[in-house]
Amino acid sequence: DVVTIPVDDPVAFTFFTGYMSMFAASVFFFFERSRVPEKWKTSLLVSGLITGIAAVHYYYMRDYYASTGSNPTALRYIDWTLTVPLMCVEFYLLTKPAGATKGLMWRLIIAAVWMLVFGYIGEAFNPEGGSTSHSVTYGVLSTLGYVYILYLAWMGEVKQLAEKTNNPTIIRGIRTLSWFILVGWAIYPIGYMCMPGGWLNIAFGWQPSAVDLFYNIADAINKIGFGLVVYNIAIDDLSKAK
Amino acid sequence: DVVTIPVDDPVAFTFFTGYMSMFAASVFFFFERSRVPEKWKTSLLVSGLITGIAAVHYYYMRDYYASTGSNPTALRYIDWTLTVPLMCVEFYLLTKPAGATKGLMWRLIIAAVWMLVFGYIGEAFNPEGGSTSHSVTYGVLSTLGYVYILYLAWMGEVKQLAEKTNNPTIIRGIRTLSWFILVGWAIYPIGYMCMPGGWLNIAFGWQPSAVDLFYNIADAINKIGFGLVVYNIAIDDLSKAK
Ligand SMILES: CC1=C(/C=C/C(C)=C/C=C/C(C)=C/C=O)C(C)(C)CCC1
Ligand SMILES: CC1=C(/C=C/C(C)=C/C=C/C(C)=C/C=O)C(C)(C)CCC1
Repeated sequence: DVVTIPVDDPVAFTFFTGYMSMFAASVFFFFERSRVPEKWKTSLLVSGLITGIAAVHYYYMRDYYASTGSNPTALRYIDWTLTVPLMCVEFYLLTKPAGATKGLMWRLIIAAVWMLVFGYIGEAFNPEGGSTSHSVTYGVLSTLGYVYILYLAWMGEVKQLAEKTNNPTIIRGIRTLSWFILVGWAIYPIGYMCMPGGWLNIAFGWQPSAVDLFYNIADAINKIGFGLVVYNIAIDDLSKAK
Repeated sequence: DVVTIPVDDPVAFTFFTGYMSMFAASVFFFFERSRVPEKWKTSLLVSGLITGIAAVHYYYMRDYYASTGSNPTALRYIDWTLTVPLMCVEFYLLTKPAGATKGLMWRLIIAAVWMLVFGYIGEAFNPEGGSTSHSVTYGVLSTLGYVYILYLAWMGEVKQLAEKTNNPTIIRGIRTLSWFILVGWAIYPIGYMCMPGGWLNIAFGWQPSAVDLFYNIADAINKIGFGLVVYNIAIDDLSKAK
């Protein structure tokens, strides 16, 4: 039962770096939480939970991939089902001082769940050999949820509330998070299109194993990046308070 | 020994999300405990214990279900035997400032144990192939305990004491918890009726595996939800103290 990572398998490589970096990020956020001003402690805790939950899933996904060589689709979506809503909670916590309601949080969460449910149907129930119509149909449905989140972050309530805080650190922080959603999250649909029947699979022959390669890279960027943005907001506040 | 979750098995899916979310919730309650006012620290600790005990049971139930495909009835009731009484303790802690006695706590606990003992007999000793008379008899007996808890929460002592606190946060919190008992807890008997011989099994052909599906969903809602209600009461108090 020795962990073996073939030198020429970037997917296995990123499963392992994903696992370690998520774990380390959690330790970082949990420790630093004790230093930041009171009002940011919950946000840092949630950041640590996001990477911590991911670390556990990566531990299982890594082993699953290493022994079967196939995509751990169910584990992947179980991870997202928990971590994406927690990211919505982070948005809510950042905009709460400016008057964000629980309603906004729930709208973000429902859009995220919508996005994930259709993505899951698209991937998990893709017929043997792959079906382009299946993957496109559910991919488009899923994207509607994604676009709604983008709308809220870039033009809707989240944006308006950020401005109302009158706090340049928070405004900048929310802006950065919105960039993560626009650019970082866009890596996921690229991965999705590598599955059998997917556009990138058909057009360029990208292999199904690339699904996990993209997902692993995107997860590291988004989960740790999100947490670091929140962390920076908190640290900025700390140095101002001094 | 790789954890494998079939993509088309929602029961396995919810066992895994249940496990992870309970675990994360405990970490959350344990950390946040340090921030809340002194008088809420015990309540937050109990919230974290409830989800923590559940996380351990889910870890074992998940593996049991994954390798046998059958209902981990004994583990399930072992979990409840510990966590449901702890929920009764939460009610007691919330109403204590208004004069709740240990007697009230014990009445809640005895009703809960009554409910669980008959539920256990109903499920664990259901004859081969399922017996409707068996499941109905013990289901009804169990429900008597459930109804008594509902009575205490909605009309009896818990309700009266909540009003006596004159603290709108606590009144609202207890009201929310009572809704959890009325709606969230009602999901359990639905699961129970899916077992062989149960009404929903006979009437609609709902499968025995749905027992665990309902229990898993209900557990996530009730255990984490209960804890979050208590957490919100504590945080509300914190912001008022400032
Ligand atoms: C749009 C779209 C998708 C988007 C997935 C996203 C945006 C996932 C984000 C996950 C995150 C942020 C996890 C980190 O915790 C899917 C489901 C691949 C299906 C294809 C269409
Ligand atoms: C009424 C009734 C039942 C109720 C079970 C309940 C209400 C369980 C609650 C469990 C909780 C709240 C666990 C969380 O920690 C049974 C036993 C299924 C048997 C059928 C009748």
